[in-house]
Amino acid sequence: MSQRKPSSFVSHLECPKCNKTYSVDEVNQLCDCGTPGTPLLVRYDLKKLKTEWSKSDLLTREPSLWRYRELLPVKSDENVVSLGEGMTPLIPLKKLGEKVGMPNLLLKDEGTIPSGCFKARGAAVGISKAKELGIKSLAMPTNGNAGGAWSLYAARAGIEANIVMPIKAPKITRSETAIAGAKLYLVDGLISDAGKIVGRAVQKNNFFDASTLKEPYRIEGKKTMGLEIAEQLDWEVPDVILYPTGGGVGIIGIYKGLKELQEIGWIGEKMPRLVAVQATGCAPIVKAWEENKKESDMWEDADTLAFGINVPKAIGDFLVLESIYETDGCAVAIDDETIVKCQEEIASIEGLFVCPEGAANLAAAKKLREDNWIKEEEKVVLLNTGAGIKYPYDPGKPAILQPDEDI
Amino acid sequence: MSQRKPSSFVSHLECPKCNKTYSVDEVNQLCDCGTPGTPLLVRYDLKKLKTEWSKSDLLTREPSLWRYRELLPVKSDENVVSLGEGMTPLIPLKKLGEKVGMPNLLLKDEGTIPSGCFKARGAAVGISKAKELGIKSLAMPTNGNAGGAWSLYAARAGIEANIVMPIKAPKITRSETAIAGAKLYLVDGLISDAGKIVGRAVQKNNFFDASTLKEPYRIEGKKTMGLEIAEQLDWEVPDVILYPTGGGVGIIGIYKGLKELQEIGWIGEKMPRLVAVQATGCAPIVKAWEENKKESDMWEDADTLAFGINVPKAIGDFLVLESIYETDGCAVAIDDETIVKCQEEIASIEGLFVCPEGAANLAAAKKLREDNWIKEEEKVVLLNTGAGIKYPYDPGKPAILQPDEDI
Repeated sequence: MSQRKPSSFVSHLECPKCNKTYSVDEVNQLCDCGTPGTPLLVRYDLKKLKTEWSKSDLLTREPSLWRYRELLPVKSDENVVSLGEGMTPLIPLKKLGEKVGMPNLLLKDEGTIPSGCFKARGAAVGISKAKELGIKSLAMPTNGNAGGAWSLYAARAGIEANIVMPIKAPKITRSETAIAGAKLYLVDGLISDAGKIVGRAVQKNNFFDASTLKEPYRIEGKKTMGLEIAEQLDWEVPDVILYPTGGGVGIIGIYKGLKELQEIGWIGEKMPRLVAVQATGCAPIVKAWEENKKESDMWEDADTLAFGINVPKAIGDFLVLESIYETDGCAVAIDDETIVKCQEEIASIEGLFVCPEGAANLAAAKKLREDNWIKEEEKVVLLNTGAGIKYPYDPGKPAILQPDEDI
Repeated sequence: MSQRKPSSFVSHLECPKCNKTYSVDEVNQLCDCGTPGTPLLVRYDLKKLKTEWSKSDLLTREPSLWRYRELLPVKSDENVVSLGEGMTPLIPLKKLGEKVGMPNLLLKDEGTIPSGCFKARGAAVGISKAKELGIKSLAMPTNGNAGGAWSLYAARAGIEANIVMPIKAPKITRSETAIAGAKLYLVDGLISDAGKIVGRAVQKNNFFDASTLKEPYRIEGKKTMGLEIAEQLDWEVPDVILYPTGGGVGIIGIYKGLKELQEIGWIGEKMPRLVAVQATGCAPIVKAWEENKKESDMWEDADTLAFGINVPKAIGDFLVLESIYETDGCAVAIDDETIVKCQEEIASIEGLFVCPEGAANLAAAKKLREDNWIKEEEKVVLLNTGAGIKYPYDPGKPAILQPDEDI
């Protein structure tokens, strides 16, 4: 086993459109090509890593995303801001899988991560790198969960956070943001409206802009979901991964992470087919995919109870679509009523209280199985992005008893 | 490394009062000695285990509580009902620790476990063993969190659950119970009232009684918190563990688990001093400890916002007190106002949104540090039993903006 101390093999930032490179040692946000600019991707010295890193190095490391220290962008250990996030369980859904004709159905459960939501991954790595870059205050728009997670990690790092979220965002995320001591603003509108407020605030107050993909590092946190799935399946990727897609950073990250594993020789040539799952009330990626387009159009009057995927136009849409096209994946939209039914089906059969976004995956998988796009014997991973307890759910009207009454 | 397949070394059940033994292969609840009977403890063949199990066996095992398969009571793999629970992070609280004069302060975060609460540990092991024993339906009283967790695991196991909780229990736990498909009843009273309803229902309907410590196996799930703390600290136990104490199964379990580790030679003679933390509105263990008693009296008019520890009289109180006395520990009560302040302090300094019960530990640790009962250099673990998001928290009144307004 190698005795090398784990450290980052990060080299630079690169624009995926014009290939211009940028330094990881100074603050960089978007590439100046295109309008409103293009998200930058983090690059590593994968050739060197291939010879200097081996799977057995992981054996003695903690079960957190920092086990992949070499493929993360934070250079100094002292800048790592961690709450132990990552290495969430990959749970077999045996009973449910047999019921729906997919006996090899699995669920990656991001409900068991700090803040109860996969946003913690992006926050952990994004905030750590922000700390490394000396950032003192940031601002971000959010549909709620990212705001909660980034506020908590920012508090731990000693960074001031300014968070703007729609009034309709889940209330519990207000509590997370407030208790962390962040500055919380509610907007009477969508996340795109929150984004405009943040955009102006960044210009006026010189905040760091932590908007989705306007900082390059949260992808690196999210990609660890892909690294973990590969490791948990003993470096054999599944056939299909379904992912609820709002801003799409997770699907972009999983694709990026798996490509990096290929380049260092830890997995073979096979890639899972990536499926972007959206709500019928907000499905810009599905529409673009159906029209075989490379970018999406703004979705008008976006609305769904799966609030985390209520994103009418994602700045990284072209990367989401690329990850679908390149893996022979697809995109599927599910209505809200079906989402809630699937949430109940997963809980009552498999004991997992997943979030609505996560439940949408089951409906999408069923649909794709019916169409025989998914074959019976295939290994299928549903990515549940968060805990159901963060969302309202109506438990009905339970009987109320006096102490002397019987059940 | 041993090639033996992991399996349980369970041998029998034993009454800690009269030492009568019972089988683990048939349904047993309380020992018939005493009134209302005495909780049974699970015993293992520790002599054999000492020679046949080594720490290095753990290296390749999944980061869940089932890594300690040998010290768990479930015999057959096919009865293991798991959602990947366990191996929660042990997080350094460096900034907070320095502020309060305990630089070696750590927090074990049970917020990152299925259902967002440590009750999942007891449920995973309790339900697995219930499945192994062929149980088809169970009933239990709960302050909410255990009901949610047991309902979810019961659903996964295909066992019917009947859950009785106080109306005042956290509402989110109603949702967990309902979505899992359990039968949910609310009682206009305390958990002790719920317990009486369950007691009658068990007699009438032949349900398995899953009340705290009336089934012997949930302790085994809870004890894994102690096993994990020892493993995470490289088999050196900390000086002090603070634990919010309601039914007290966790503190009993941690003590039991660490004693077992001593017997198999994985840790030395040192034990951590165990501290039972309660709320001033419900502090029967603290009162009993102050009076140097072996059992507690029923606490009248119990009330605290830390709902999980609102237990006026615990059936295992004598075991809780024993674990305190035997480790030179103590018991401390904290008022609700201080609990909320500590919750905010932990979130805004360390980025962890802990539950009120978990926050009470910080107040207790501060108090014990002021009294010099905890020394500056000592390693102190706060056991946070669950996620703050499961409880109401008032985020104040954030500013509401129109899309064209600035922050």
